[in-house]
Amino acid sequence: MEITRRDLFKVSAAIAITGAMSRVALAADDPLPSWNEGAPKKAILDFVHATTDQGSPRFVPEPERIATFDQDGTLWVEHPMYTQVGYCLERVPAVVKAKPELANVEPFKTVLSGDREAIAKLPTSDLYKILGATLSGMSVDQFEAEVKKWLETARDPRWKQPYTALVYLPMIETLDYLRANGYKTYIVTGGGQDFVRQYSERTYRIPPEQVVGTAGGTTFGYDKSGRPFLTKDPKLLLNDNNAGKPEGIHMMIGRRPYAAFGNSTGDRQMCEYTKAGDGERLAMLVLHDDANREYAYGPAEGLPDTRVGTFTQALYDEAKSNGWTIISMKNDWKHIFGY
Amino acid sequence: MEITRRDLFKVSAAIAITGAMSRVALAADDPLPSWNEGAPKKAILDFVHATTDQGSPRFVPEPERIATFDQDGTLWVEHPMYTQVGYCLERVPAVVKAKPELANVEPFKTVLSGDREAIAKLPTSDLYKILGATLSGMSVDQFEAEVKKWLETARDPRWKQPYTALVYLPMIETLDYLRANGYKTYIVTGGGQDFVRQYSERTYRIPPEQVVGTAGGTTFGYDKSGRPFLTKDPKLLLNDNNAGKPEGIHMMIGRRPYAAFGNSTGDRQMCEYTKAGDGERLAMLVLHDDANREYAYGPAEGLPDTRVGTFTQALYDEAKSNGWTIISMKNDWKHIFGY
Repeated sequence: MEITRRDLFKVSAAIAITGAMSRVALAADDPLPSWNEGAPKKAILDFVHATTDQGSPRFVPEPERIATFDQDGTLWVEHPMYTQVGYCLERVPAVVKAKPELANVEPFKTVLSGDREAIAKLPTSDLYKILGATLSGMSVDQFEAEVKKWLETARDPRWKQPYTALVYLPMIETLDYLRANGYKTYIVTGGGQDFVRQYSERTYRIPPEQVVGTAGGTTFGYDKSGRPFLTKDPKLLLNDNNAGKPEGIHMMIGRRPYAAFGNSTGDRQMCEYTKAGDGERLAMLVLHDDANREYAYGPAEGLPDTRVGTFTQALYDEAKSNGWTIISMKNDWKHIFGY
Repeated sequence: MEITRRDLFKVSAAIAITGAMSRVALAADDPLPSWNEGAPKKAILDFVHATTDQGSPRFVPEPERIATFDQDGTLWVEHPMYTQVGYCLERVPAVVKAKPELANVEPFKTVLSGDREAIAKLPTSDLYKILGATLSGMSVDQFEAEVKKWLETARDPRWKQPYTALVYLPMIETLDYLRANGYKTYIVTGGGQDFVRQYSERTYRIPPEQVVGTAGGTTFGYDKSGRPFLTKDPKLLLNDNNAGKPEGIHMMIGRRPYAAFGNSTGDRQMCEYTKAGDGERLAMLVLHDDANREYAYGPAEGLPDTRVGTFTQALYDEAKSNGWTIISMKNDWKHIFGY
């Protein structure tokens, strides 16, 4: 039998799909089409080239390629309220139904009143009480089912979209591009690890085991039929904000990232830790300066620093003087959402 | 140009190396050559077939394929002493040199005396003091360098081999076989997470981020030049033994394993948790019943249960009545070591 060029082409195509050549094929197109040309897009492309080109003096072996992404305000919308806080507030009636004695106890009383202005003014200590009551005390399986159910029906008040639709398309492209180049992508969030894990795979193509977040402990036990299960504890094991981010990265990953993406002071130490490594390292911060298409807050608008997690002027200055890249939503992103 | 069968063969070979066909090629040979034919080998082969064959009613999608392995006594030798405890004891002189006031304080005084019999009799509480003093208080970088240096020169007293050579070849084959079938393999050890991570990739082809172990916290800070670094704390975050194993699996992986391998009561809850999942689940325990080629202890020899981590008669009975598979080192392993 004679084998034709056409046969060989078919076999070669199969290689391109299954093997290493798929990366070459991808690189031929623009891997970041939702980004405008400019310094941030160039920084990502240059970083990937410098760390993955075999001939580069700053080549990084594939197993060491770790990239970490904050979630709220970096991968998806965080205004006017963290999505998870919204979930917790909406869970309060169910919690009070199970424990009626809470109905007249603050802060539950205020939340039940539905008075949005009063709820918005609750101090952080009260917020933690609500988080504790709504994120612990149930089995892991029960919690996971509740979060999944909520996500199906909950809608953002401004865009009337499911929260998982409000992810930033340019960042999804960045995640895909890094992965196509051998990077393992992680979420490193101040949000609840167990909460984010319920949608990370579907929304970001990041599996649960690559979600590092604020985490409480669990307690192993047996139900009446002797079946083992885990109960979510109120005890905090990891506060994955600020210094807790590099600490959480060490605990959960055990390697220093080569690239880190954030948008607030809560990501400062993660960026510092990343940039302090040898060789080529990338730190990028998303600046929310697009009130029309999303929101504008932080130094772009001179807004006051009322929350943990704000992009302060001090952070902006540190980024500028240490070679971190600022991403302007307004100027650098051609599209914001993909829905 | 005419393309010959030989050209096509070359291209096909390239596919076999790079793509999915490599699995087919592997499966044609015996993937577990160091195992004798018998129930345990069959259990592994049947499990993989049932969970990875697309036509199987118990097929498991690839992202959910998680297998967890205890380390000491399951993947490598744990007698006469856990390797890490040996490391800690050998670190005591350096710790005392840095803090001379410890020289006359127990248990450091006994360790410095070199009296093996007295050292072997130290109570667990004293052992924890030694672990605390030798595994914390230094930077993460310093600790990692010390462990790597120690592993290069330390030798097991019986076999005169580096500890990392004393891994069980049949288990290495099992790790490889599971990975070749899309399983993500994890170590879930009572040993120190940071300790095991220093050699897991080279020894087991398990990357640091897939090592779950007993873990202390770290504290983020800056050195005199302003460079950020992490210091290892004595504070325990995760005691990855007994109930701590499923708790650690939830914290670090967030998915229930489909297969779990252990050898002691410390692995009981991990096996129970694994088997309690839906569909096909595998739990296997290594029984040390080969005094000639390795050691014999536990129910095989009626040895007393003096340590946490012993294979008790109660564990043996639970395994037998719940469909866990007992691996007899003596009968089921053709070879034990690969060095």
